[in-house]
Amino acid sequence: MNSYGYENSIRVLGISGSLRNKSYNTALLHSAVSLLPPGMTLEFVDLSSLPMFNLDEEKPFPAEVEEFRQRITQADALLIATPEYNASITGVLKNALDWASRPPAQPLNGKPVAIMGASTGNFGTLRAQLHLRQVLTHVGALTLPKPEVLVARAGQVFAPDGDLVDEVVRGFLRELLVSLADWTQRVSAPYAVEMG
Amino acid sequence: MNSYGYENSIRVLGISGSLRNKSYNTALLHSAVSLLPPGMTLEFVDLSSLPMFNLDEEKPFPAEVEEFRQRITQADALLIATPEYNASITGVLKNALDWASRPPAQPLNGKPVAIMGASTGNFGTLRAQLHLRQVLTHVGALTLPKPEVLVARAGQVFAPDGDLVDEVVRGFLRELLVSLADWTQRVSAPYAVEMG
Amino acid sequence: MNSYGYENSIRVLGISGSLRNKSYNTALLHSAVSLLPPGMTLEFVDLSSLPMFNLDEEKPFPAEVEEFRQRITQADALLIATPEYNASITGVLKNALDWASRPPAQPLNGKPVAIMGASTGNFGTLRAQLHLRQVLTHVGALTLPKPEVLVARAGQVFAPDGDLVDEVVRGFLRELLVSLADWTQRVSAPYAVEMG
Amino acid sequence: MNSYGYENSIRVLGISGSLRNKSYNTALLHSAVSLLPPGMTLEFVDLSSLPMFNLDEEKPFPAEVEEFRQRITQADALLIATPEYNASITGVLKNALDWASRPPAQPLNGKPVAIMGASTGNFGTLRAQLHLRQVLTHVGALTLPKPEVLVARAGQVFAPDGDLVDEVVRGFLRELLVSLADWTQRVSAPYAVEMG
Repeated sequence: MNSYGYENSIRVLGISGSLRNKSYNTALLHSAVSLLPPGMTLEFVDLSSLPMFNLDEEKPFPAEVEEFRQRITQADALLIATPEYNASITGVLKNALDWASRPPAQPLNGKPVAIMGASTGNFGTLRAQLHLRQVLTHVGALTLPKPEVLVARAGQVFAPDGDLVDEVVRGFLRELLVSLADWTQRVSAPYAVEMG
Repeated sequence: MNSYGYENSIRVLGISGSLRNKSYNTALLHSAVSLLPPGMTLEFVDLSSLPMFNLDEEKPFPAEVEEFRQRITQADALLIATPEYNASITGVLKNALDWASRPPAQPLNGKPVAIMGASTGNFGTLRAQLHLRQVLTHVGALTLPKPEVLVARAGQVFAPDGDLVDEVVRGFLRELLVSLADWTQRVSAPYAVEMG
Repeated sequence: MNSYGYENSIRVLGISGSLRNKSYNTALLHSAVSLLPPGMTLEFVDLSSLPMFNLDEEKPFPAEVEEFRQRITQADALLIATPEYNASITGVLKNALDWASRPPAQPLNGKPVAIMGASTGNFGTLRAQLHLRQVLTHVGALTLPKPEVLVARAGQVFAPDGDLVDEVVRGFLRELLVSLADWTQRVSAPYAVEMG
Repeated sequence: MNSYGYENSIRVLGISGSLRNKSYNTALLHSAVSLLPPGMTLEFVDLSSLPMFNLDEEKPFPAEVEEFRQRITQADALLIATPEYNASITGVLKNALDWASRPPAQPLNGKPVAIMGASTGNFGTLRAQLHLRQVLTHVGALTLPKPEVLVARAGQVFAPDGDLVDEVVRGFLRELLVSLADWTQRVSAPYAVEMG
């Protein structure tokens, strides 16, 4: 049993809302690997293979969708890096969440989730994160409230190869991951906690 | 010159945010054809051929995207029927708006838009329309503020063949179209209006 | 130690966002008293004595504000009943939350909160609750994600004397309170939980 | 008849959402006086005398409320400077809008409105303006979509005496006022415009 009380590690699935090759959000997500607290692992899932959501095509789900849903189910928590496109999340990310929300399994229901985002502008995906929290709350995900990780002026915090070189942002990201570990244990407990 | 002051008709482009064959929102959009005020025409565009948005693939835009953008540019106004998936708009619709928002043309900038939506539940896409208005405002579209057309319990207002049979809803839709004609003329005027 | 693991009861402070004498939201809040799970107590605080928020007047806080802040601090959790005025929360409620958010104590930070609302219309304060969640998340409150308690057509679920007579709504309210008890213990635990 | 087509000037009523003596938002609003386009006048209304909204006390409205409502009715347009408190508008501003929204007159319905805001942080009231637009849309106000005036790091753009000294921000504010003049004429026209 590690320091977080899980017998095995807390397995986090990382999702980037951008399909770009040199996406700052994908880079932000990958930066988390070197900042993980002990007892947490991070893997990634690629959204580029998911088809457009169509309710007529969910029985059965397309193979790529089925696999995406199973990876969410198997994860203990999610870490989502969201771009902001037009004051909201990307169609790519929303489409993935729509697939993941569907019954019968409803893989997002009850799932602990941490969110973050990077933009080249001044607001660091503030509006996208507001929409994302509303969507995640609706599907029953348990979204970590704090810290907010809003990476503004992304061009200055990443090196050209995608390395997150800004120490302040690295600190926020580390804090987010530690908070997610704590949050995951609190909200995922299979029974009401004895606090006496 | 018709009663709306346009020499020719006001050409409206209709967009449904759902790809389903029997989508209530597509049905709602098609219902508008029989309710158009004089001097307004309505055509439709299908979002199913649009690829997932990827900033790496916009120079040049894929052919389907280029055509979609041109149809928006050529329209005098848009009529969007939005489903509500998980308290927001669909990934399909957001993806289309992301493609349409891009420079150089920015086809949505300054475009008059009316929005509506249908759901089988009680809220009639209320939350989706809140997100949609925010996105449209951000891209510079001029969204008609009223009336709000929120079609709840869609299973009861459409016939099995998709006909909009509820007279109250038909009245709201007619009012929306008339308001859009008026709104389009007001906000699209190429010069400040003399009101003296 | 009661069934919820607290040595003493979970003390909930109830806040109604309406000042009306016959407010449905105040009635909804009072209805909770008879539906409390074992080990939970509920008291109320009245917002009518709070002055309008003015940053110039917070050193020291007005006496009514200081007392309001202390009551939040002493509570284990909050239960907020919010009306919907003009698609958002009331000025009265926002004003109270603004006072409660201020340093040095920041009484809302880390506080478990359940929200609900009643309206005479069809949407049951849906939009107000979206705004309220955003505000609460910002101030660091830990808002219970589910169930959503949206009481529509309030005129039909309350008796003229304010009694909550609709059994379905009573069931939702009971479920909210039980969930709040569980949530409060999970998120308020002073240490990371052992889950092995 | 002036250059904007109004026989008389466009009378704008300015509203600050803060009660502070040295509020940056009140200072921003007052800065508009020296930037008005020809044919526009600007007066101010003070929200500090408005009581907390209570539906039980609206027949008749308190005298201060009645006067506030009449001043909105008499204005051709509104200019609102909103602080951001806890990711939303202030309780003070929401309270005023609640009073102003009520029948029978519904003074906000159909009223052209421009919004702006100043904050000491990095986001310049971005979230408050999102909520404010939703509220204004709901009450039927016709909110100018662009430009967005988001004054961040307000401590650097105002002189100690409240003078708006940042030329870039002054330019945005000037653009907002010119756009409001144009917008007011377009959307307030008593008849559909001839565009042929």
